[in-house]
Amino acid sequence: MTNRKEVAKLAGVSEATVSRVLNGVGPMKESTRNRVLEVAAQLNYKLNAIASNFARGKSGNLGVVLPHVPKVHLFSTYYFSELLSGIGEAVRSKGFGLLLLFRDPASVYDYVSLYRTQRVDACIVLGASAFHTEQEGISRLAEERLPFCVIDQQFNNPLVSIVAADHEQGSYEAVKHLIDKGCRRIGFLNGSPQYSNSSDRMLGYRKALQDASIDYDKTIIYEGNYSRTSGNQAADRVYADLDKLDAVFVSNDRMAIGLIQGLRAKGCQLPRDLRIVAYDDSDAASLTEPPLTTVKVPFYEMGQLAAEKLLNQLVGKDDTSFIIQEKLQTELKVRQSSGS
Amino acid sequence: MTNRKEVAKLAGVSEATVSRVLNGVGPMKESTRNRVLEVAAQLNYKLNAIASNFARGKSGNLGVVLPHVPKVHLFSTYYFSELLSGIGEAVRSKGFGLLLLFRDPASVYDYVSLYRTQRVDACIVLGASAFHTEQEGISRLAEERLPFCVIDQQFNNPLVSIVAADHEQGSYEAVKHLIDKGCRRIGFLNGSPQYSNSSDRMLGYRKALQDASIDYDKTIIYEGNYSRTSGNQAADRVYADLDKLDAVFVSNDRMAIGLIQGLRAKGCQLPRDLRIVAYDDSDAASLTEPPLTTVKVPFYEMGQLAAEKLLNQLVGKDDTSFIIQEKLQTELKVRQSSGS
Repeated sequence: MTNRKEVAKLAGVSEATVSRVLNGVGPMKESTRNRVLEVAAQLNYKLNAIASNFARGKSGNLGVVLPHVPKVHLFSTYYFSELLSGIGEAVRSKGFGLLLLFRDPASVYDYVSLYRTQRVDACIVLGASAFHTEQEGISRLAEERLPFCVIDQQFNNPLVSIVAADHEQGSYEAVKHLIDKGCRRIGFLNGSPQYSNSSDRMLGYRKALQDASIDYDKTIIYEGNYSRTSGNQAADRVYADLDKLDAVFVSNDRMAIGLIQGLRAKGCQLPRDLRIVAYDDSDAASLTEPPLTTVKVPFYEMGQLAAEKLLNQLVGKDDTSFIIQEKLQTELKVRQSSGS
Repeated sequence: MTNRKEVAKLAGVSEATVSRVLNGVGPMKESTRNRVLEVAAQLNYKLNAIASNFARGKSGNLGVVLPHVPKVHLFSTYYFSELLSGIGEAVRSKGFGLLLLFRDPASVYDYVSLYRTQRVDACIVLGASAFHTEQEGISRLAEERLPFCVIDQQFNNPLVSIVAADHEQGSYEAVKHLIDKGCRRIGFLNGSPQYSNSSDRMLGYRKALQDASIDYDKTIIYEGNYSRTSGNQAADRVYADLDKLDAVFVSNDRMAIGLIQGLRAKGCQLPRDLRIVAYDDSDAASLTEPPLTTVKVPFYEMGQLAAEKLLNQLVGKDDTSFIIQEKLQTELKVRQSSGS
């Protein structure tokens, strides 16, 4: 590999001089400058944006910190894959690298050391929860005023930059759609309570019921963990409650698919026996039988927006002290699972 | 942010001394060592594996270089998401970071500079093709004898480490399955020819026909680009050829789903009118109507294996001069799309 040492030797200058020429730093005799550039070109030693960043003490990387969830193929979930596709597009178009790192949600993750050791210039935190360890890690990061952004999780801390979707609005519209179709007894299969986007969905569900003067009935609230398996498991309880249900609102497509498979295995006909509205509008939503009425969430755009805002701060286009606060709207996609 | 400077100031030593104590380098008076460690602890300046790597001139990152494909949400394709999940698991379990970088397949990518600038310690190349630019970039990398591995693409270069799946075997079994069901006129919707895994599928297809004494008929060979849209577009030609087809073998699930949607829109009943065998066994394979008979490819395991082999070289467990050559077996999953 051609390196600085070889260039220095052939050009008859010090390694420091090579660096100064290639990085355009400091005064330099024209003849020296030309000799170094010629030798470097001859040896195919290219100064690129990366090397230049590196010389300036920057990594050129945007960090993305994901939770480690045993046995789950994280990138294969629609949620993470779309967020990462959006982040990846922004990172690529601005010439940065995307450094993926995994955290254990049960420990306080040391975000700050990522900056100190020059591994990242900014960070995006995905899949954060209300666990105190997670909150603590992010609070420490916020205190240092380092550039970072959390996606899709609320924090009671004005220093935390957040890009989120309006899940209260999305859930409100999903439940209102069922009410408009004449449903009164609407169950709710929600995801894990440690995510604020689960509580936001609950707020929207309750508000839609309230606006239609329907009493909240906690006996038809079910809980899963956003996996297909947990949706499949919920089918037992939902099936037992079938005579008191017109419909079920489900917090993501994966759980809805598991629930549908479980109910069909018990002989249910959908949407005749039960109307279903899901959430995400993943690729699978239009493949199921019946195809899913679901709330489309702009995950790709959320990832792209968060990354662009952070990278604009890094290249000096935006002020780094600016706290990002963005909430994107969702959109109901009506298909057959909610009935005709 | 607590940094080396502050520790040095409070301990009354130079910054170089702080580094030497924290990295355990060189001789040091016990009293100085203790003072630095006390101050560092007091200021919560932790020396972690990352900082230590960094000090030794290592990045602690495994690079993964992906092709940039305009408009495609790369992480949302089953192929890339599963490979990345497997790579991610290996990287996480060994305490490394995963640096994602994007290349333009039409240019010669400068892999070597990633090592020179200490952005990565090793590299995995995904989605490589037979384009001469791609071959050139990888050949240069191989010449430098830097640790890297290509996944799922063959190269005529003994210095290139490769982890692949046996697509010839997978395709052979898929086509043989159709022949065993009595099919003789078996069309083939293949993916883009610049990928060696497409030509490998063709080899398996032709061998299965040959072993059953069925002539190869180039008029029933169709071409897509592995996208759902391209499968949908192929439906026109397949529909026009319906009277001369018993079945179609399709090179991935996405194209098969597009083809099925296109054929159903024209009024076809599957598998009655046409039997289909697909490839990948993605999540969607069991959701379609009819569910897909398909060749399961161990993408997750391929990613994990490539990353583990490279990281073992980095930590000195395996010899770095070792060329990785692994070919994993596929498995046919029989469902309804190939008929009962």
